[in-house]
Amino acid sequence: MTYKERLAAIRSQMKGEGVSAYIIPSADPHISEYLPDRYKCIEFASGFTGSAGTLVITDDFAGLWTDARYFVQAKEQLEGTGFELVKLQVQHSPEYIGWLGERLPEGAIVAFDAKLISVGLAQLLESELSPLGITMNSDRDYLDPIWNDRPALPAAPAFLLGEEVVGESLVSKLERVRAAMKKKRADFHLISSLDDMAWLFNIRGEDVKCNPVVLSFALISQDKAMLFIETTKLNTEDQQKLRAAGVELETYDLIEKAVAALPSDSNILIDPKRNCYALFKVLPESVRVVQDTNPTTFFKAVKNEVEIAHTRKTMVKDGVALTRFFKWLEENIGKIKITELSVSDKVRACRAEQEGFVGESFDTISGYKAHGALPHYRVTPESDAELHADGLFLVDSGGQYTSGTTDITRVVSLGNLTDEEKIDYTLVLKGMIDGSTARYPKGTKGYQIDAISRKPLWDYARNYGHGTGHGVGFFLNVHEGPHVLNPSPTPVDLELGMISSVEPGIYRTGKHGIRIENLVLTVQDETNEFGEFYTFEHLTMALIDTTPVKKELLEEHQIKWLNEYHRQVVENLGPHLSADELAWLKEKAKPI
Amino acid sequence: MTYKERLAAIRSQMKGEGVSAYIIPSADPHISEYLPDRYKCIEFASGFTGSAGTLVITDDFAGLWTDARYFVQAKEQLEGTGFELVKLQVQHSPEYIGWLGERLPEGAIVAFDAKLISVGLAQLLESELSPLGITMNSDRDYLDPIWNDRPALPAAPAFLLGEEVVGESLVSKLERVRAAMKKKRADFHLISSLDDMAWLFNIRGEDVKCNPVVLSFALISQDKAMLFIETTKLNTEDQQKLRAAGVELETYDLIEKAVAALPSDSNILIDPKRNCYALFKVLPESVRVVQDTNPTTFFKAVKNEVEIAHTRKTMVKDGVALTRFFKWLEENIGKIKITELSVSDKVRACRAEQEGFVGESFDTISGYKAHGALPHYRVTPESDAELHADGLFLVDSGGQYTSGTTDITRVVSLGNLTDEEKIDYTLVLKGMIDGSTARYPKGTKGYQIDAISRKPLWDYARNYGHGTGHGVGFFLNVHEGPHVLNPSPTPVDLELGMISSVEPGIYRTGKHGIRIENLVLTVQDETNEFGEFYTFEHLTMALIDTTPVKKELLEEHQIKWLNEYHRQVVENLGPHLSADELAWLKEKAKPI
Repeated sequence: MTYKERLAAIRSQMKGEGVSAYIIPSADPHISEYLPDRYKCIEFASGFTGSAGTLVITDDFAGLWTDARYFVQAKEQLEGTGFELVKLQVQHSPEYIGWLGERLPEGAIVAFDAKLISVGLAQLLESELSPLGITMNSDRDYLDPIWNDRPALPAAPAFLLGEEVVGESLVSKLERVRAAMKKKRADFHLISSLDDMAWLFNIRGEDVKCNPVVLSFALISQDKAMLFIETTKLNTEDQQKLRAAGVELETYDLIEKAVAALPSDSNILIDPKRNCYALFKVLPESVRVVQDTNPTTFFKAVKNEVEIAHTRKTMVKDGVALTRFFKWLEENIGKIKITELSVSDKVRACRAEQEGFVGESFDTISGYKAHGALPHYRVTPESDAELHADGLFLVDSGGQYTSGTTDITRVVSLGNLTDEEKIDYTLVLKGMIDGSTARYPKGTKGYQIDAISRKPLWDYARNYGHGTGHGVGFFLNVHEGPHVLNPSPTPVDLELGMISSVEPGIYRTGKHGIRIENLVLTVQDETNEFGEFYTFEHLTMALIDTTPVKKELLEEHQIKWLNEYHRQVVENLGPHLSADELAWLKEKAKPI
Repeated sequence: MTYKERLAAIRSQMKGEGVSAYIIPSADPHISEYLPDRYKCIEFASGFTGSAGTLVITDDFAGLWTDARYFVQAKEQLEGTGFELVKLQVQHSPEYIGWLGERLPEGAIVAFDAKLISVGLAQLLESELSPLGITMNSDRDYLDPIWNDRPALPAAPAFLLGEEVVGESLVSKLERVRAAMKKKRADFHLISSLDDMAWLFNIRGEDVKCNPVVLSFALISQDKAMLFIETTKLNTEDQQKLRAAGVELETYDLIEKAVAALPSDSNILIDPKRNCYALFKVLPESVRVVQDTNPTTFFKAVKNEVEIAHTRKTMVKDGVALTRFFKWLEENIGKIKITELSVSDKVRACRAEQEGFVGESFDTISGYKAHGALPHYRVTPESDAELHADGLFLVDSGGQYTSGTTDITRVVSLGNLTDEEKIDYTLVLKGMIDGSTARYPKGTKGYQIDAISRKPLWDYARNYGHGTGHGVGFFLNVHEGPHVLNPSPTPVDLELGMISSVEPGIYRTGKHGIRIENLVLTVQDETNEFGEFYTFEHLTMALIDTTPVKKELLEEHQIKWLNEYHRQVVENLGPHLSADELAWLKEKAKPI
């Protein structure tokens, strides 16, 4: 079946049921960002493989709404599929709702699969479209009937982590969740989001590529904690440990039944952004819903001392791996055949030498010259480009270690840079430094740091279409909420112990892409009559190429920071490098 | 009746009706910021005269929730009233709702007067408190029975402005409103907010101090525009003009009846933030409500070419008035008796010499030394301090002219500054320059400019508890939405033609206060492959005292800007000054 045939098959089902528009989001019943193959619906329907987007199909239009990171990729992948790219103004914003509102007549029906739509999104669709006389049909899966070889749900093994790794027991975490429930007067709390599940139960697995999570749900009350999971994924010892901590194990697919059987007149706490509408719909009518962010989302984001100590060590391992990779690249470029794909393999191999490495935390973005201009470029055998001793090469990669998660972007000069490349590189570096060295009052939100990171680029009328940074898990998802550093008005404070990435960029289509990314930890700074101030500690420990830097564009404090950072990199990585490697690093990291 | 007796009288009514908590917001039935005397309920109940706050009364606690601008003032004014100050974390945020939720038991009743609570606030109370089993009683005015001499509604005359002043006819504005209604499929549109009314009908009045507005409501449909106003306020000619433009005039207090009589199954557009809950409640049940910002709020914020041209000229007048004031102050300080109050009079007198001056746009903030540390200090005969040739003096003032509204803050050195005063002054200046000279992409929100303004202060671990800026009306309210430059996540783009203030500050209780404020206009900048960029044009034209500046703390671009700005000030004001005045200004404005 071609994509055009699939689209026709969807439209024919829509027509048969009088549906005017069909929405296919990028989600699963856990409202995940990274999806098990079974839920890669957008890829199945349109061929688009990006991690964010929404398909909307009407009788005369089929569009993919996605953000600037994916404009080029989407245009290429949608060619000839019948789908058109619709450029989002604001990342992750459901701008198609306004579009539907303007186009659909009164009486129209909009359909979707409630398992793939969050409670909040369903409510937004309802509140925006129902005043226009448009109704919803929320239990329509038009893909299943035409998806012959649809993959089954994953059944990878799962395992528990000890307190010496995660710093807090399941029992203690459950206590905190229950205290939060009490504050909200919630008798029950439903958790669907897989990273919240992994954090709360100190459980990890391999159900989703790059994310060490396990398909599962939880239903918590003051005296019960029900974990819905395929128990075959756990060995007997781990099952016993869970039961000993007061957890009742139930089969994964019984969650819907359990939610539908909640006692009448009870209160349930549900995060509208992280639970699917399908589970919300089956709640008994008399159950009152308290809608709020999962307490675990906040708890998880604030790393404890054990997690922070592990993370610091993990960053050194990751830095050692990258140092070896960059040294290898410099020494071999122009001598042996090196391509974007072989670089990805080499980076993975360097990390794999490190103790505790489990796998990549996301697919490596390995982009030479113009490929670097695609912020989420994923190299394929077809696109694979050979690197030469010329131009800029961008590599954004990360590792899952049992002791933490890493995510780092570096751009290296392979030779012969243009002035434009050097200026762009220096401006991005300025943005990264200003954002990641900011001092800010308690209560500061990510969008404020985002603005500070962008200013050096705005001053030169340059900008980037993605956020400046995101939260990062502890041996968990590389993208983690609730905080985010981007221009959207997300009202979440940066709290002590939160990890964020800071990664501004500049992308020139057809030319080059630059992004420099470090992970940072929110730590205490001065307290005075103006209040409590926080700042960032740099977690990422890896060389930043100084050869493209135009020093005259840097301010004094930026130069000072860069030299001091490199001093720390040498100091921290040194003990783990060979004499040869250390000598190379010292030379590359020398003060500018 | 003392404040304590009033509080007891309120509590006794609460007790009689089984009410657990009573909310008194700072608002009127138009959800205004500046209130007619009849609605100064917080002042009547507690003595607090600040422009923002909420009283919440329970049986064992009575509190005023207000923001950092008013902490010192509130503490003083609430002394002995039975009310305690509760410090808001976030300006204008209804943090008392969470407080109520944590304290009130299931079954409790929260009461308020629906005329003084916006639709949005009532809905928020409902959505936050009803899941906790708390119910609302929304038609309780416990003040009226104990407010013997409660002032009547104002009855000042009103008048229409010509197209040569405002640049657009009522007919054209109505067309734009109706087009916006059509887009939202609204059959009707209710407007309560007085500045939206004034803008739409090109009408001005004197019903509220400092704000040239008229108490009125409007109910608009595609073929009708009903204006609810005391028609005696308008002369016959203006009444005829309105009728000729298709406006039906109705008595002010008939609005509730008209809303209650809307045809069934119609759609009405209502701004939940700018209409009171009392009018919302009387809507027939079958009427569908489309909740969205008033279209006029956006239209009004984007000034047209005629308004901008008038505003530029008005800023020159205002700058001339201020130049004369500052010259007078410098020449007389230490020679004649000058107090905060006499300064306020002098500033008003200097403005009054200018053509088209109508009155002040807000009560002048005239604060010497420690008084300057109260960001919204309002001098009274009791607090009035004498100025000496020593320390810093802050004056924040503005004028209503028939050709525009001004708002400017300057701090001048009267002599003998401490190093701390100079550093604080220079940091505030840096913040003002960085915010007001920012280049930013189309789509940038006020909170992003706010962060840029704060960074120079944060770098030195200093901060201020108010927003960086606000929108400003055209011969209208000095505070005008929808855009605002503050840390709160207000998702409103800065659009071409919007006027904003940029006014960072540093306040040291008991020592000094510094704030430097200019008004700026969003204008076009470069457009390139990274998109469309905007920047600000400086509207305010007035000397910035350079004597407190520590030049070594300024960056090169900041020095350059300051000198160029002063060149423009001299160039623009020069033709309107006497030779003597110009010579004085030139000397004060010479490059640093």
